[in-house]
Amino acid sequence: MPELRKDPIVDRWVIISEERANRPGDYPSPTQKQQISFCPFCPGNENKTPEGILALPHNIGRDAPGWTLRVVSNKFPALEIECDVNRIGEGMFDKMGGFGAHEVIIEHPDHQLSLEEASAGAISECLWAFQQRILDLKKDSRFRYILIFKNHGEAAGATLEHSHSQLIGLPIIPEMVMEELQAAKRHWDYKERCIFCDLIAQERGNGSRVVVENQNFIAICPYAPRFPFETWILPKYHLARYEKDSQIDYAQAAAILKDVLLRIREALNIPPYNLVFHTSPVSGDYDNIYHWHIEVMPKLTKMAGFEQGTGFYINPTPPETAAEILRSVKINP
Amino acid sequence: MPELRKDPIVDRWVIISEERANRPGDYPSPTQKQQISFCPFCPGNENKTPEGILALPHNIGRDAPGWTLRVVSNKFPALEIECDVNRIGEGMFDKMGGFGAHEVIIEHPDHQLSLEEASAGAISECLWAFQQRILDLKKDSRFRYILIFKNHGEAAGATLEHSHSQLIGLPIIPEMVMEELQAAKRHWDYKERCIFCDLIAQERGNGSRVVVENQNFIAICPYAPRFPFETWILPKYHLARYEKDSQIDYAQAAAILKDVLLRIREALNIPPYNLVFHTSPVSGDYDNIYHWHIEVMPKLTKMAGFEQGTGFYINPTPPETAAEILRSVKINP
Repeated sequence: MPELRKDPIVDRWVIISEERANRPGDYPSPTQKQQISFCPFCPGNENKTPEGILALPHNIGRDAPGWTLRVVSNKFPALEIECDVNRIGEGMFDKMGGFGAHEVIIEHPDHQLSLEEASAGAISECLWAFQQRILDLKKDSRFRYILIFKNHGEAAGATLEHSHSQLIGLPIIPEMVMEELQAAKRHWDYKERCIFCDLIAQERGNGSRVVVENQNFIAICPYAPRFPFETWILPKYHLARYEKDSQIDYAQAAAILKDVLLRIREALNIPPYNLVFHTSPVSGDYDNIYHWHIEVMPKLTKMAGFEQGTGFYINPTPPETAAEILRSVKINP
Repeated sequence: MPELRKDPIVDRWVIISEERANRPGDYPSPTQKQQISFCPFCPGNENKTPEGILALPHNIGRDAPGWTLRVVSNKFPALEIECDVNRIGEGMFDKMGGFGAHEVIIEHPDHQLSLEEASAGAISECLWAFQQRILDLKKDSRFRYILIFKNHGEAAGATLEHSHSQLIGLPIIPEMVMEELQAAKRHWDYKERCIFCDLIAQERGNGSRVVVENQNFIAICPYAPRFPFETWILPKYHLARYEKDSQIDYAQAAAILKDVLLRIREALNIPPYNLVFHTSPVSGDYDNIYHWHIEVMPKLTKMAGFEQGTGFYINPTPPETAAEILRSVKINP
């Protein structure tokens, strides 16, 4: 029997409807490796991207050969740093200049390797680079939010195959983050506890939606997921800001991210996926109420009119089933 | 230069970024006609669908041959009428039985014909049937919202080719509708005017986002659209509830819907699209503040991690450009 579920964090109802499809084999079309033609992200093509912003290892130039990770500006940015943030009224409408930053993190030099196939060391470098870029951009007070995300596979919106993540710095706080912050604030005002810490405690007690955990991190399928096999990775300790996590154990964070992505890859036959970091806005005091985390969303279903028209998602796979399947995957990390 | 825009109705910021792509030719893969195999919606296969709920013309049986329109229950419903609406707490989570209705409106008997290719008379019949189904379902007080939508083309979520719309009756008000209602209520509380009536007045005065109008209806590309070529159709007179529109001029409503869909088809090379009716919730007094309308969203871009992770959309085509292109299309309705 289908169910409706609501997650107090996102404050949004979801239909859980097993009748439509729920096992991995019910979903179509895995990501196929595309034909390789010219790739601007491959070593030797450094002059085909905008100027480098950051590169690893530390002792090489930003556009020099021999890099293991590179950060560059997006060649086709959604927002531009040169724009003004001018807020203008246009009759009953509001308008703002398209100020922002749009960067690409080229995760490693190997064109053939996806993020989950890369070494834990390479993933650690990415996690470090994300922090560095946020810390750098935060110096510009026009930013309200800095979003890290990854589109893997064409169906998930990736336009280039070479494994990369993206950063968009925004002059506003995105709606869905704002909703999470508001829900977290209501919970704090009422209980003086972090809603995510409460969630982790409940999920660890229950166990049915836990995918995997290590000493500092836990991966769960959330109670009311919008998408089948949606998985969240959270630090078990309370911390609102990803970039403030100076104590972060990169090895452990990289290990659980690699583990979760490999499980999804294995269980769902190399699906396209999206990955989004949720962290506190640049300014404002969210230290008590918010809790940074990563959301991984395999792209198995097509968004239909119903979802688009309502913000109300139909998800054919209960998270308990998804977690059970992901738990049972045998991986060799 | 890209812009950020916010629509007071949906209260959501959008990036307008012409740098990425904006002309119809920049978008990939139109809907292809699929191979026809067995179709349960074709005449003669009435016993392959669940029992008929409604059929036209009026004098024939619900599952009899000779129909011009049929309404049946969805064979794979997302929600079920037999479920209870029980609201249950599960630790910190909320849960509800999967009560609801999920119906299919088979718009006409011809397998080859899309809705926009059908006669204005056939489209009128659909508009009438939508009203009848809402009026009937409203008698069950467990419904909070009744949503009419259409997925056209595989990429837009359609699983069967034969042209059809869907109805989902819900025991909750979907998030996006709730946000519209709240924004409309704020506007009313402040100004004692309908925000949609204000919008229509402003758009008619400005003209740059108007696609087409007739005596009673107007089609516009909204100021801050989430999707390229998103188009809204609104009655020019104030009316909150679609099903209450006993004065509706079906001929005019059908004419503008056909016109808009044909323009989109022509301009964008038969794209997949979603169409959603927005109307008042089943109960509650929204008569002053809300205004029913239809939203048409061609499916030209893939939803990427950025959109999914933030509820914040990147749209490469400004609505003024979209409206200009749609206005200039020559159609033979």
